[in-house]
Amino acid sequence: MAERIGLWLNGARGSVAATAVSGLVALRAGLVPPVGCVTELLDANLAPWDAFVVGGHDIVTTPLAKRVESLVRDGVLSYDVAGCIASGLDAADAEIRPGYDPAAPSPSQADAARRLAGDIADFRARHELARVVVVNVASTEPPVRVEHDSLAALEEALAVPGNVVLPPSSLVAYAAFRAGCAFVDFTPSTGVALPALDELARSNALPYAGRDGKTGETLVRAALAPMFTSRALRVLSWTGTNLLGGGDGATLEDPAHAESKLASKTRGLAALLGEDVTAPLHIDHVPDFGERKTAWDHVSFEGFLGARMSLQLTWNGLDSSLAAPLVLDLARLMAAAHAAGRTGVQGALAFFFKDPLGSDEHRLAEQARELHEWARTLGTR
Amino acid sequence: MAERIGLWLNGARGSVAATAVSGLVALRAGLVPPVGCVTELLDANLAPWDAFVVGGHDIVTTPLAKRVESLVRDGVLSYDVAGCIASGLDAADAEIRPGYDPAAPSPSQADAARRLAGDIADFRARHELARVVVVNVASTEPPVRVEHDSLAALEEALAVPGNVVLPPSSLVAYAAFRAGCAFVDFTPSTGVALPALDELARSNALPYAGRDGKTGETLVRAALAPMFTSRALRVLSWTGTNLLGGGDGATLEDPAHAESKLASKTRGLAALLGEDVTAPLHIDHVPDFGERKTAWDHVSFEGFLGARMSLQLTWNGLDSSLAAPLVLDLARLMAAAHAAGRTGVQGALAFFFKDPLGSDEHRLAEQARELHEWARTLGTR
Amino acid sequence: MAERIGLWLNGARGSVAATAVSGLVALRAGLVPPVGCVTELLDANLAPWDAFVVGGHDIVTTPLAKRVESLVRDGVLSYDVAGCIASGLDAADAEIRPGYDPAAPSPSQADAARRLAGDIADFRARHELARVVVVNVASTEPPVRVEHDSLAALEEALAVPGNVVLPPSSLVAYAAFRAGCAFVDFTPSTGVALPALDELARSNALPYAGRDGKTGETLVRAALAPMFTSRALRVLSWTGTNLLGGGDGATLEDPAHAESKLASKTRGLAALLGEDVTAPLHIDHVPDFGERKTAWDHVSFEGFLGARMSLQLTWNGLDSSLAAPLVLDLARLMAAAHAAGRTGVQGALAFFFKDPLGSDEHRLAEQARELHEWARTLGTR
Amino acid sequence: MAERIGLWLNGARGSVAATAVSGLVALRAGLVPPVGCVTELLDANLAPWDAFVVGGHDIVTTPLAKRVESLVRDGVLSYDVAGCIASGLDAADAEIRPGYDPAAPSPSQADAARRLAGDIADFRARHELARVVVVNVASTEPPVRVEHDSLAALEEALAVPGNVVLPPSSLVAYAAFRAGCAFVDFTPSTGVALPALDELARSNALPYAGRDGKTGETLVRAALAPMFTSRALRVLSWTGTNLLGGGDGATLEDPAHAESKLASKTRGLAALLGEDVTAPLHIDHVPDFGERKTAWDHVSFEGFLGARMSLQLTWNGLDSSLAAPLVLDLARLMAAAHAAGRTGVQGALAFFFKDPLGSDEHRLAEQARELHEWARTLGTR
Ligand SMILES: NC(=O)c1ccc[n+]([C@@H]2O[C@H](COP(=O)([O-])OP(=O)(O)OC[C@H]3O[C@@H](n4cnc5c(N)ncnc54)[C@H](O)[C@@H]3O)[C@@H](O)[C@H]2O)c1
Ligand SMILES: NC(=O)c1ccc[n+]([C@@H]2O[C@H](COP(=O)([O-])OP(=O)(O)OC[C@H]3O[C@@H](n4cnc5c(N)ncnc54)[C@H](O)[C@@H]3O)[C@@H](O)[C@H]2O)c1
Ligand SMILES: NC(=O)c1ccc[n+]([C@@H]2O[C@H](COP(=O)([O-])OP(=O)(O)OC[C@H]3O[C@@H](n4cnc5c(N)ncnc54)[C@H](O)[C@@H]3O)[C@@H](O)[C@H]2O)c1
Ligand SMILES: NC(=O)c1ccc[n+]([C@@H]2O[C@H](COP(=O)([O-])OP(=O)(O)OC[C@H]3O[C@@H](n4cnc5c(N)ncnc54)[C@H](O)[C@@H]3O)[C@@H](O)[C@H]2O)c1
Ligand code: NA
Ligand code: NA
Repeated sequence: MAERIGLWLNGARGSVAATAVSGLVALRAGLVPPVGCVTELLDANLAPWDAFVVGGHDIVTTPLAKRVESLVRDGVLSYDVAGCIASGLDAADAEIRPGYDPAAPSPSQADAARRLAGDIADFRARHELARVVVVNVASTEPPVRVEHDSLAALEEALAVPGNVVLPPSSLVAYAAFRAGCAFVDFTPSTGVALPALDELARSNALPYAGRDGKTGETLVRAALAPMFTSRALRVLSWTGTNLLGGGDGATLEDPAHAESKLASKTRGLAALLGEDVTAPLHIDHVPDFGERKTAWDHVSFEGFLGARMSLQLTWNGLDSSLAAPLVLDLARLMAAAHAAGRTGVQGALAFFFKDPLGSDEHRLAEQARELHEWARTLGTR
Repeated sequence: MAERIGLWLNGARGSVAATAVSGLVALRAGLVPPVGCVTELLDANLAPWDAFVVGGHDIVTTPLAKRVESLVRDGVLSYDVAGCIASGLDAADAEIRPGYDPAAPSPSQADAARRLAGDIADFRARHELARVVVVNVASTEPPVRVEHDSLAALEEALAVPGNVVLPPSSLVAYAAFRAGCAFVDFTPSTGVALPALDELARSNALPYAGRDGKTGETLVRAALAPMFTSRALRVLSWTGTNLLGGGDGATLEDPAHAESKLASKTRGLAALLGEDVTAPLHIDHVPDFGERKTAWDHVSFEGFLGARMSLQLTWNGLDSSLAAPLVLDLARLMAAAHAAGRTGVQGALAFFFKDPLGSDEHRLAEQARELHEWARTLGTR
Repeated sequence: MAERIGLWLNGARGSVAATAVSGLVALRAGLVPPVGCVTELLDANLAPWDAFVVGGHDIVTTPLAKRVESLVRDGVLSYDVAGCIASGLDAADAEIRPGYDPAAPSPSQADAARRLAGDIADFRARHELARVVVVNVASTEPPVRVEHDSLAALEEALAVPGNVVLPPSSLVAYAAFRAGCAFVDFTPSTGVALPALDELARSNALPYAGRDGKTGETLVRAALAPMFTSRALRVLSWTGTNLLGGGDGATLEDPAHAESKLASKTRGLAALLGEDVTAPLHIDHVPDFGERKTAWDHVSFEGFLGARMSLQLTWNGLDSSLAAPLVLDLARLMAAAHAAGRTGVQGALAFFFKDPLGSDEHRLAEQARELHEWARTLGTR
Repeated sequence: MAERIGLWLNGARGSVAATAVSGLVALRAGLVPPVGCVTELLDANLAPWDAFVVGGHDIVTTPLAKRVESLVRDGVLSYDVAGCIASGLDAADAEIRPGYDPAAPSPSQADAARRLAGDIADFRARHELARVVVVNVASTEPPVRVEHDSLAALEEALAVPGNVVLPPSSLVAYAAFRAGCAFVDFTPSTGVALPALDELARSNALPYAGRDGKTGETLVRAALAPMFTSRALRVLSWTGTNLLGGGDGATLEDPAHAESKLASKTRGLAALLGEDVTAPLHIDHVPDFGERKTAWDHVSFEGFLGARMSLQLTWNGLDSSLAAPLVLDLARLMAAAHAAGRTGVQGALAFFFKDPLGSDEHRLAEQARELHEWARTLGTR
């Protein structure tokens, strides 16, 4: 029998997590086809869906079943499918442990990390898992400045009681590596993007990838911006307005939290089109949208002889529906990368991310090609 | 000094032709940067803009200067640029000869073709041109069924007085090959897409390419459809509405003429997404649009767990502004291909066409890559 | 106790009918607020929702409960509401009789009409109803030419066995009047819009209104076109594309059936803006849309000094959700009109219709004002 | 001969002013039809276009002819019309005086106002004008808090050297009234909206109107929001994004200046739909838009049985083209109101304004009706 693999979700009670767990259960039961799962298109030797066991951390206690109810109301999954996956959801629910809550007291961040790593190691042991992939899908954090560039300096600081050295996302990445797990950052938070954590991953021979899942406006931009450049058309402005509800919308209503997301989106456009493009970008919280996200982009461009033209886009997506299969894909791919001994940042996974770590490639088609090539090197089926 | 090259436009008094000529004159005079010219991005040894001399055929006599006046009104070029290119336009005007008019009497189509080829050969001789590239930018024709599959059978039929064997676009391609010229079909008309003409091109060692310049809705589709497939998302419907004025709009108001265009657009989508996608498509003639084209596309797609999402696009383009630089690019590329001894259909130019002859690749990014590779094989600069 | 009123739906098993019945049951049970019910805004003495009893004709036998299931899938009503209205649906279901099927044999159309009128009279008697309002919500028919302008001539022709004199919608109107009922045509079919039927209504002292419920693109046009005229802006073109699924979409896929709908829409725009506006209009059947309708309108207009501007609209509606409360409103209003002795066409109800009978007013705000005034004359509460 | 009337523009060298002057000259010369001029639709006795003489204040010295050149480039008027109005523009140019510049030193605001009023009185005398209407079309100011509620207290404060009591727009209104002129505020600045200025207008028996010309997104909202309320549909959110270039765009890039505009827009929507609607609103400065403004609105609404629907709008306007004819209309109407002895705020002109002074009516159709009625009371032609 194939080896069993753990998928450990940080933010396990959120929309993306709940959709990923629902989908995994439904895929395993053959209730739905793997639409949206990129790994199904790859020529690679990846674990089957039923190899996976799910657990995770969160700081709220809402049962997954409750969360799924509201996803049904918002059109993320149907009433019928939801009815068939109840026991699978409960099983995952039983594996969710209290996350690291920056607002709650803890002796030192080192202690907290030890506790997180322990939860993961215990999960791996109890289920006799060959390996565990940790994926961060917790709420977006505001950007922070972390001082300690070397692992030694970082660990020294973490040990001091009362010291707040790392944001939660980075503490989780630290704990994941300490527990010997591959790590994926699906959020725009600081997470793994620190020199000291890169050092840790490499010294522990662990692969990681990130960051900020590319599921909406940025996905479309990554597909369309290269159209303009390959046709030698000059983009003058590319403006964006994002309307979203849900938990993510509520978080991003706070400008400090939105800053990470806006920075990640803006970097992508500049990488694709250069710095000269006027590119105002807004994220608005509109509660009635629920899980829906609507993004409107307006592109002004100049053609031959100075002619002025434009393109407008309205994207109407269900964010969690787009994110969840990618989370499962990343679990499969990182498990295989771990098994194959890949170490450090996996830039070839840029296809999945708004702000790809370890890669400067933002053009979607090129990212797809890199992914397919990389997957082939993992051993084909 | 570099060799001089002829660009012979069939439909030389139309919008695309007039814009291409205006642009060539303006580029030569350094009045405008080569925005929209794809060949500027290629690593290839291509003729400079001032190597080109322009002539052509048309069945109307409106002076190019007059045509350009209306292009200025429609925003295709500015009043200022138009003022500086008058003498260049007049020079091109003097090289335009009466085209083949199917409504006018001619002894046999063979005679007519001889006359057309003679005009081109005379132009080449007078200007001491190393070679001439013929580009068809005449009005779109209705689809026709041509019987004769071998060159011999075709030529026999052409010689019979009163016989209408070929539509004008194909007669022009025939004449171009008989005159020893490379040929490009920028329209969706039958043109060169006949076995007998392919035979002729190959036996005369001439390259050709086509068809139907990809400048608007289809360009965007070629960039976006692969986004859905590479993400394993299932497109359910992709509907299109095109509003256009201008000469092209007036021609396409007639359903028979529109049929060629609709067929060419529809084939592209099916090639990208499969046959199962509901894809109604309309072209409406809206005179007040002038040279502007507005296209609205609505894409419905299904994601993970059956979630329903959509993307809407509104493209607002100036068709001739988008087409003209491609016509110049194709002249440069086909001249180089001719010089390099390339023969028959050049499928690597699929990047330029809605309905690429000699290629099944419809994904824009892949087409761009093929073009860049092909161009490199022509010898880099 | 207030008098009891019958609502007799022709096409009682269709989407509009099933939504209206669901809504009536839900309103009566206080499950939902009367959002979308215009009569709630009127200062008039109208029957309460629980005064109504529903019955109808249809030519299919799909149970209402089954129909409602698919409406839930399409987002017209929630799973929760659907669960609470089952017995109300069944009660209505038991009152649906076989409609007039033009494909089925019947001795003469006069016989058929007698049978239809009998069903309605029987329903009125059994439920001790003070009056019955008949509303046609059956599938749209192709336009037809009816010869007989006087009631006498019409009835003579109807009596001839085998003669097909009237389309089903008109036969239903005839039967309604013969049964002494007020009549509303919610469809663009010929229905009541015949001189002989007007004669019958007036001689029986019955009120009627129509036609073609105004629920989507035309509603928006009726609100927006007056903006342009009141600002002295010149609309040059107003193009429309309608994408729809559902039963209505399937019917309208047939160009003959679509003709009635297109004619009704086009007349409205011409009445609002004059005949000079270029106004191509398309209806496409896109099955994946289900009950959803998406309409895209593009308006080009000219302002001061010849400036060119535009407005684009994308309407995303659930047709039956918009239609159903209007059907209930019309039942209330026509019952009151009947009670108040109003006779003949009620042009003051133009607010509800795309192609208002008895009125030339197409401006929405003016129609609203007329409706409010008319309602006040029925006696305020 | 009819009486001659002055139109005094504060901000006379801006886009709106330059377009209004161009248009007036062109209308007088019969070069263009009065498209966009609402007064042409009224049944009222208004001065003809050639009764008007133009002058004004501004704080820059760019010649009108120069400004018009850039309006031509941006599509506001054609090269041809611009060529025919040069001498008319020069005549207006000669009547523009230095405006009140808050950055320049002046003894007291009372002195400054005296100088402004003197310029206007001098203009009236030299041209033997029956009356002058002052229209503020200067750059939008940030909102300010003005202390003095009575005219006496205000004038006392104005007299103190060095005191900055009023923002420029209000000082201009004060000067206009002191010079015996009717006043219109076409901007969202504080302007005339102060109790002390209302007192002054009434005591001098002068009419005034304002504020903030309604030319784009808000115009469309005023037409569309009543559609939802008259149909009892519940608007949940109405979001707006405005992209604009030009001088107005540059001014509004500064959040302090944008605040006045956003407040004026937001008040309108709340007045139409109530306070519960989520209504984020953005104004972005996108230089490549020039005089073009593109606004995207997304409306989410709830219908019967809780169904969720949406409407999207993209407005593509030339702001100055829409504003200029209204400025001319207001000059005509206020001259007539002045002649007819109307005093104080003219709420019946709400049709023209985003934030109508003296009126609570925001529904466009109702505003149009009020305007037509009010105009009739001025004496019909
Ligand atoms: N949905 C998408 O398409 C998408 C795309 C890219 C990135 N993301 C990112 O994924 C993340 C999750 O999005 P979502 O829509 O599921 O949001 P959500 O608000 O529904 O879920 C976030 C979850 O994280 C939990 N959480 C918060 N702080 C935590 C902590 N310190 N430790 C553990 N758990 C914590 C919350 O309790 C919540 O259950 C966000 O950061 C979002 O920006 C989502
Ligand atoms: N503009 C674009 O973006 C674009 C893109 C793809 C294809 N095309 C195709 O390019 C062609 C030209 O487009 P346009 O906008 O310039 O149209 P147009 O109507 O302005 O010009 C067509 C010209 O062809 C001439 N013509 C007609 N029949 C002829 C004949 N038998 N021989 C010689 N000349 C003839 C006409 O007189 C006219 O001058 C069309 O077939 C169009 O479908 C254009
Ligand atoms: N939904 C809207 O917003 C809207 C607006 C305006 C007009 N309408 C019109 O309302 C009608 C109903 O729309 P729908 O979406 O419910 O369509 P539907 O196809 O769901 O329902 C039509 C029903 O009519 C029945 N029918 C067909 N022929 C009949 C006959 N001869 N006698 C009795 N019943 C017959 C059908 O069996 C079906 O049950 C259509 O004509 C449509 O054009 C609908
Ligand atoms: N264009 C529209 O559709 C529209 C609609 C509503 C309101 N408005 C308002 O009209 C005003 C003008 O818009 P625009 O596009 O012409 O802007 P603009 O920037 O082109 O012109 C403004 C002019 O005002 C002048 N000015 C600045 N301060 C002044 C002062 N203290 N005294 C006299 N002049 C001064 C400037 O020098 C400039 O010439 C703005 O306040 C704008 O918000 C315009
Ligand atoms: Na990167
Ligand atoms: Na007000």
